[in-house]
Amino acid sequence: MNLEEIQDPSFLKNYSNKQLEELAADIRRFLIEKLSATGGHIGPNLGVVELTLALHQLFDSPKDKLLWDVGHQAYVHKILTGRAPQFDTLRQYKGLCGFPKRTESEHDVWETGHSSTSLSGAMGMATARDLKGTNENIVAIIGDGALTGGMALEALNHIGHEQKHLIVVLNDNEMSIAPNVGALHSILGRLRTAGKYQKAKEDLETIIRKIPAFGGKLADTAERLKDSLKYLMVSGMFFEEMGFTYLGPVDGHDLDDLKHQLSYAKKTSGPVLVHVLTKKGKGYKPAEEDATGAWHGTGPYKMESGEMVKKPGPPSYPSVFANTLKRIAREDERVVAITPAMPGGSKLDLFAEEFPDRMFDVGIAEQHAATMSAGLATQGMKPVYAVYSTFLQRGYDQVVHDICRQNLNVLIAIDRAGLVGADGETHQGVFDIAFLRSLPNITILNPKDENEFQHMLYTGICYDDGPIAIRYPRGNGTGVKMDASLSRLPIGKWNVLQEGTDAAILTFGTMIPVAEKALAQLKQAGYSIRLINANSVKPLDEKLLEALAEEELPLLTIEESVLQGGFGSAVLEFYNEKGMHVELKRMGIPDYFVEHGSVSELYQEVGLTPERIADTLISMLPQKRKRA
Amino acid sequence: MNLEEIQDPSFLKNYSNKQLEELAADIRRFLIEKLSATGGHIGPNLGVVELTLALHQLFDSPKDKLLWDVGHQAYVHKILTGRAPQFDTLRQYKGLCGFPKRTESEHDVWETGHSSTSLSGAMGMATARDLKGTNENIVAIIGDGALTGGMALEALNHIGHEQKHLIVVLNDNEMSIAPNVGALHSILGRLRTAGKYQKAKEDLETIIRKIPAFGGKLADTAERLKDSLKYLMVSGMFFEEMGFTYLGPVDGHDLDDLKHQLSYAKKTSGPVLVHVLTKKGKGYKPAEEDATGAWHGTGPYKMESGEMVKKPGPPSYPSVFANTLKRIAREDERVVAITPAMPGGSKLDLFAEEFPDRMFDVGIAEQHAATMSAGLATQGMKPVYAVYSTFLQRGYDQVVHDICRQNLNVLIAIDRAGLVGADGETHQGVFDIAFLRSLPNITILNPKDENEFQHMLYTGICYDDGPIAIRYPRGNGTGVKMDASLSRLPIGKWNVLQEGTDAAILTFGTMIPVAEKALAQLKQAGYSIRLINANSVKPLDEKLLEALAEEELPLLTIEESVLQGGFGSAVLEFYNEKGMHVELKRMGIPDYFVEHGSVSELYQEVGLTPERIADTLISMLPQKRKRA
Repeated sequence: MNLEEIQDPSFLKNYSNKQLEELAADIRRFLIEKLSATGGHIGPNLGVVELTLALHQLFDSPKDKLLWDVGHQAYVHKILTGRAPQFDTLRQYKGLCGFPKRTESEHDVWETGHSSTSLSGAMGMATARDLKGTNENIVAIIGDGALTGGMALEALNHIGHEQKHLIVVLNDNEMSIAPNVGALHSILGRLRTAGKYQKAKEDLETIIRKIPAFGGKLADTAERLKDSLKYLMVSGMFFEEMGFTYLGPVDGHDLDDLKHQLSYAKKTSGPVLVHVLTKKGKGYKPAEEDATGAWHGTGPYKMESGEMVKKPGPPSYPSVFANTLKRIAREDERVVAITPAMPGGSKLDLFAEEFPDRMFDVGIAEQHAATMSAGLATQGMKPVYAVYSTFLQRGYDQVVHDICRQNLNVLIAIDRAGLVGADGETHQGVFDIAFLRSLPNITILNPKDENEFQHMLYTGICYDDGPIAIRYPRGNGTGVKMDASLSRLPIGKWNVLQEGTDAAILTFGTMIPVAEKALAQLKQAGYSIRLINANSVKPLDEKLLEALAEEELPLLTIEESVLQGGFGSAVLEFYNEKGMHVELKRMGIPDYFVEHGSVSELYQEVGLTPERIADTLISMLPQKRKRA
Repeated sequence: MNLEEIQDPSFLKNYSNKQLEELAADIRRFLIEKLSATGGHIGPNLGVVELTLALHQLFDSPKDKLLWDVGHQAYVHKILTGRAPQFDTLRQYKGLCGFPKRTESEHDVWETGHSSTSLSGAMGMATARDLKGTNENIVAIIGDGALTGGMALEALNHIGHEQKHLIVVLNDNEMSIAPNVGALHSILGRLRTAGKYQKAKEDLETIIRKIPAFGGKLADTAERLKDSLKYLMVSGMFFEEMGFTYLGPVDGHDLDDLKHQLSYAKKTSGPVLVHVLTKKGKGYKPAEEDATGAWHGTGPYKMESGEMVKKPGPPSYPSVFANTLKRIAREDERVVAITPAMPGGSKLDLFAEEFPDRMFDVGIAEQHAATMSAGLATQGMKPVYAVYSTFLQRGYDQVVHDICRQNLNVLIAIDRAGLVGADGETHQGVFDIAFLRSLPNITILNPKDENEFQHMLYTGICYDDGPIAIRYPRGNGTGVKMDASLSRLPIGKWNVLQEGTDAAILTFGTMIPVAEKALAQLKQAGYSIRLINANSVKPLDEKLLEALAEEELPLLTIEESVLQGGFGSAVLEFYNEKGMHVELKRMGIPDYFVEHGSVSELYQEVGLTPERIADTLISMLPQKRKRA
C-alpha cells in the first residue's frame, strides 16, 4: 500500500495477518529506501515492524498509551500514525524528529531519547488513570539493554509492589547498542532457551502429581517443594519475583504469537511483562549482519549493497581517544577504562582489543560506571570514565558525591560535548559545563583539536590532584598535525592563538575555528582581534584575565554550551570577585532546548557563526573608540 | 572494657563469642549514653553491633576493605578503630563525622552519606585488586532499603556478570528510614520465612532422588525439572539469578551464626550475598519500639526514659508543606504527592493519612520518582515530587530530560535546601540553584518564611506553564503569622522588605533574617539599606533589576548556595546581557565541600553572618560616596 496515505492506525483493526505481513514488507521497503538517503536508526526499526503493527491493531492509540523507551525505534509507529510523508526530512532541521515528539502527533504521548524512562512514565500514567477512574491501557516498549538502567529497575520494583495494571513489552534483541552485558542478560538468555519448556506446562503438572507423598520429617519440605514447583513452572522467575506476570518468550516476527500473547496481557490484571524476541535489522541483510555496529544508527548508505556513504576526513575524536589511551596504557598499568554501554561509540572496543582486562562495559548504568571509577581510584588506579555529555547527566550525583567529594583521580572523558546534530534535543551535550563547574575539586578541560586532545588525555592521566573532565565534540577532529610525543599541559594556563589589540576573544574547542573565520573577516575590515584558547574551563587562567582587564580590552566569550552558569559566567564571576570592570559580552546557547538539525544549521539558529561573532565584536568596538 | 582504650580492631582476633557479647553490651551502653548528649543515628548503629564485631574479627581491616553503605551505621566501626574518645564531638563542628571519613582513619576506605553507592565502590576495589594481583577481601554492608536504589541494582547486575569475588552483607532490618517498599521487599520477606527450609537441604536432595524416571515425551521436561530443583533449593533465587551465591538468612544478633556464614562467604569464590537479619535499635527499648521515626536519627534525649529533648518552636517547613498540601488537595483532585523513601522527613505521612491513594512512597528511587511525576503530569495530574535538595542530585537527568524538556507541570518541593548542619558535606543542599537554573523551562522559588511558603505551594499548584521548584530549608519556620487564605503569588516579581537609599541587598529564604540583623547594625551606624526579597530565583525580576541599575545603587546578593553558577551569577548575567554596569558583590558558599557542624557555625565558617554582610556593605559604600 501507499504508506503516505495512512492517516492514523484505525485502518489496522480489521486487517488479517496476511494483510499485516504485506504491510510489514511495505514498511521495511519504505524504511530501507528512505533511510538510505537520510540515515537514521535502521536496525532497531526493522526489528519492531511486526511488534508495532500488532500493538496498533490490538490497542487504541492515542486513548491507549504507547511509550517507546529510548524512542529511536518509533519510526514504524510514526508511519502508522500518519507521518510517512515526512520521512524525507527525518532527523533534519525542522524535519521529522528521530524520537517521539508530543508536538508532532497525539500518538506520541511520551518523549524519549535517553533510555530506561518508559516504565516510570507508564507508572505515572497508570496511576493517573486509576485516580481518574478511566480504563485506557498503558504499554511501555523497552529493550533488553534499557532494562538494565537503574531507573528502569527502580520502576520495576515499584510497579511490582503497587500491582498497577500496565503492560511492559520487553523487546529483547539480545543487545542494546552494544551486545548486552550484566546478569540480567544471562537471565534473559535462560528464558529464551526455556521457552519451549514453558509450553510443556501440562507435562510438568503431570510430573508433580507423580511425586510420591512423604511423611515424617520430610513432609514439610516436600510440601514446600511442590509449592515451589508450581512457581517454577512460570519461566520468568526473575520478573515473577518482581511482581510481574511473565508471558513469553514470544517470536517478535510471528504475528500470531505476538497477537495471542499481547491480547492475553491486555486481559491480565496487574503488571504484565511480555518477553518478545526480535532481530535487529530484520529483513535487510547488511543490517542483520552487523546489528551493533554502524547499522544501529547509520548515515546515508547505498540501498542495494548496504555500502555506507563515508565522508573521508580527519580522525574522529573517539578514535584519537582510544588510540591515545592505548598508548598511555602501555606505559601505565594503572589505566583502566569504563564505558556505560558505548564500547563502539567511545571506540573503547579498540582499547579492549589490546587490554581486554582493563576495559569494562558495564551496560546502561551511568551511575554505577561513575562510582565504580571512584572505587578504582581509591586503590590507586587511573580510571577513565568514558561517557557522552548528555548521559553523564545520569551520573551527576555520583560525580558530586563519590568522585568530587572524595576528590578522587578519575578522568571523565566527556564525548559528544556541545551540539550533536541529528539526535536533537535529548542528546545535546550543552549542560555539562554548568553542572560541573559548580562542583568543588573538579578540573574541566576542552581541546581545540585532536592534537591538543591527545596531550590533554596524557595530562589527565598524569594529574594527581582530583577529578579531571575532558570534554570533546562529536565527530571528527580538524585534521591538525599530531605531535609524535605526548606532553603534559599546564592546567589553568590559556594561550594566545592570534595577537590583537582592539579586543580579545576567549573561547575553546569547536568555537576556535568559528572564531578564526570571524577574525579573518574582521582583519579585512581593519580590526586587530586577539584570539585566546581558553582550554581550561575550570580553573580559569586568572593571571591572563587580570592582564586583559589591565589592558582594558573589550572581551568576548564564546562557548558551545548553555549561557546560564557557563564559561562566560565563570569569567563574569571572576572579574566580579576581583572588583574589576571589563567590557564583556558572552555568546553561547540560549535558555531553551535546541532541537535536531545539522550542527551548522544549529550554529546558525543559536547564533554561533563567524558573522554573528564579527557583528558582536564590531558592536563593542566603536564604544571602545568613543571612550578612548 | 574501656572502649576509649581501643586503638584498632586487632585485639578482637582471639576474642571468644562470650567476650564479644560482653563487648557488644559495652558498646551499646556507650552509644546510648554518648548519643543521648550529641544525638545521632542511634537505631541503625544499635542494630549492627554484633555484625560489626564479627566483621572486624573475621576480616583484617584496613587491608580488607569494609564499605558502609549510607554510612550512618558506622559508629561501632568507629569505636573499634580507635575513635571512641571522640564521640563527645560526634556530628559537631570540627568533631567526629557521622559518616565514614577517609581523613579520620585508614579503616574508612569509602565515604558515604547518600545510599546505594557501596556495591559500585566495592566493584571498583575488587577490580583494582584483581588487576594488581593482591588478595584482600572487599565487603560492602548495605541495607535492604539502599538495595532498591537504581545504582545498587545496576551494580548487582554488573557484579553478577563479572563474577568478581566480593562479599555483600545485606543488612535487612525490614525498613530503611521508612518501612521499605517495593517488590524486592516482598522477595526479602519470602527469604526470611524460607530460612528454616534452606537448612533442610539434605532432605530436599533425598526427595529429588525419589522422583521417578520418566520416559517418552515427559523425559525432557522431567530432566529440566530436576535441574531446576537443585537450583530452587537455594533460597535466594532472586540473588542467585543475578549471579550471586546467596547465604542466609542469618540472625544478625547471633555471633555463632554470623561468623559461620561470613567465614563461609570469605571462602566462596565469586560474588556472595550474606543476608543478615537485624533489629534496628536493638538493646534500647525506646529505639526498638519506634525504629522508623525519631529513633532512626535523633537529637539529644533522656537516657533513662528515652524522652526526646525537644526545643519548642515554630512549625517545621515539612509540616507546613504537608498541611498546606492537604488543604490544597481537598479542593484540587489533581494533586498527588511522591516521595523517594522520605514519608516521615517530608511529613507526607500526614498527607497520606487523609489521602492514602494520592501519596506514593516509591522507596529509595529518586530517578523513578521524578519520571513517574512526569508521567502523572502528562495526564493532567499535579504531581508534587518531594525530595531533599541533596537527593534531587540523583534525579538530575530525569529533571532535565523528562520534566523540563517535556515542559511538564511538576512541582518539585526541594526540602533541606541550603546547609543542613550535622549530616555534613554529603547532605548539604547547596548545588540545586546552580544545577537547576541552567535548565530551560524551569521556575525556581524560595520562600523567606512559612507563610510565604504556603502561598508558594498554592502558586506552584496553580501554575500551568511547566515545572516549578520550591526550595526550603531544613528545620523550623520563623514563627511568622500564617495568613488564613492561600493566594497566588506573581512569579518573577520581588518585593521590597525595607526601603533604603545607600545600597540594596538582594536575597531570599534563610538569608533574609540574617540580612535583617545586618541592616539593624547598619542603621545604627547611619546607613540606609534597601532589603529586597528575591523570592523568584528564576526568572529574575528584570524590571526591578533595571530600576536598581538606573538608581545606581550598589548591590549585594546573598545566597545560601554555591557562588559558582548561583543566584548572584544570574544577576551578573542579567546585567551583562543588558550591558548595564552596576556595582555588585556576591556572598554565598565558596568552592569547597562544607563539612558538618551546626548551621550557625557553618554560617560563620562561610561568612554568611550579619557582621560579614555589614562589613561587605560598608566596604562598598565609601566608594559610592567618593563617586557622588
